[in-house]
Amino acid sequence: MENYPSKYLEIAVNELSKLPGIGRKTALRLCLFLLDQPQAFTRTLGEALIRLRENIRYCEQCHNISDEAVCRICSDSFRDNSLVCIVESARDVMAIENTAQYRGIYHVLGGIISPFEGKGPSDLTLAPLLAKAESGKIKEVIFALPANMEGDTTCFYLYKKLKPFVDTFTTIARGIAIGEELEYTDELTLGRSIMNRTSYEMPLNNKN
Amino acid sequence: MENYPSKYLEIAVNELSKLPGIGRKTALRLCLFLLDQPQAFTRTLGEALIRLRENIRYCEQCHNISDEAVCRICSDSFRDNSLVCIVESARDVMAIENTAQYRGIYHVLGGIISPFEGKGPSDLTLAPLLAKAESGKIKEVIFALPANMEGDTTCFYLYKKLKPFVDTFTTIARGIAIGEELEYTDELTLGRSIMNRTSYEMPLNNKN
Repeated sequence: MENYPSKYLEIAVNELSKLPGIGRKTALRLCLFLLDQPQAFTRTLGEALIRLRENIRYCEQCHNISDEAVCRICSDSFRDNSLVCIVESARDVMAIENTAQYRGIYHVLGGIISPFEGKGPSDLTLAPLLAKAESGKIKEVIFALPANMEGDTTCFYLYKKLKPFVDTFTTIARGIAIGEELEYTDELTLGRSIMNRTSYEMPLNNKN
Repeated sequence: MENYPSKYLEIAVNELSKLPGIGRKTALRLCLFLLDQPQAFTRTLGEALIRLRENIRYCEQCHNISDEAVCRICSDSFRDNSLVCIVESARDVMAIENTAQYRGIYHVLGGIISPFEGKGPSDLTLAPLLAKAESGKIKEVIFALPANMEGDTTCFYLYKKLKPFVDTFTTIARGIAIGEELEYTDELTLGRSIMNRTSYEMPLNNKN
């Protein structure tokens, strides 16, 4: 039991250490750092967090984080909205957007089906996705969900639900990361990367 | 350059990543965690930080963090207030208090002399310490400052200042940590631990 010299410090350490990856020692270090900064620093931080949580909205079409009723991606007329990439969280959207390779739209489930954690289909944001599929607007669904039991279950559930309305279902390619060495790759990934091999293309500058 | 789906998210990530040890990826993970919690969670956290910074006070005698004008340690009449342990920060006080071995009082400098960081004696909280020494109330000063150039400089400076008024100056013992193996100890520590060896005492249960 630590003996905090101030109840304000103790409360702040308690609250901070509820965050994932932040233990009591780190929380104390952060609090002492804040005490060394001008008051405005902590006020700006605290208010930014409160404002984030209270003002955040979710796109009513794809359920991505958004400041508007419809997010920038869904309202972008240059996007192919017949191509829908299904992801677990808003972080996955940011990761794919950062590649600048994808010109379709997304659907953020806000979780995956996990009986172990008591999460079923009703905990996912499926209504706008199903409505869009039923209206016949979706040509291809890309599953970009985790490669584990929960991800597979979720893919299977969505496949069954969407199959009557969608022609093509794909999943993102699993394989050896670029720059990774074969000997350090797990067998499952290596096995899949051989099964799902792609046709060899000669580098452009060697073609003649 | 990351592309945040919401300006509230971007601002919160910016603010969080100003904290030491928290990069933009961790900040984003923390923000998405907060979005998954009830609003009250973030409000409690944000307000705890703001309240900490705005209400914190420092003991007017030892400059430790305190909710009162004089801290619990300085106002404890069972403490020996002729014995003053000089430390860099409030965290050091907590560390020593957790040992439950020390019954004197403290003085928190709020930093150490570091010409490299532009910190001189005027940046330390020396006035109440000097006043206490000049009144002849301090019998022994214990230096518990970092074992580096800055710590040594600070000890030397304080020694010169306090020498006319204080009889005894000591520093905390440096040596091999209990449970640590000799072969993994740095030479400096090992060398000092041999120079500053203490007399051997037989374990109590073997005495007869």
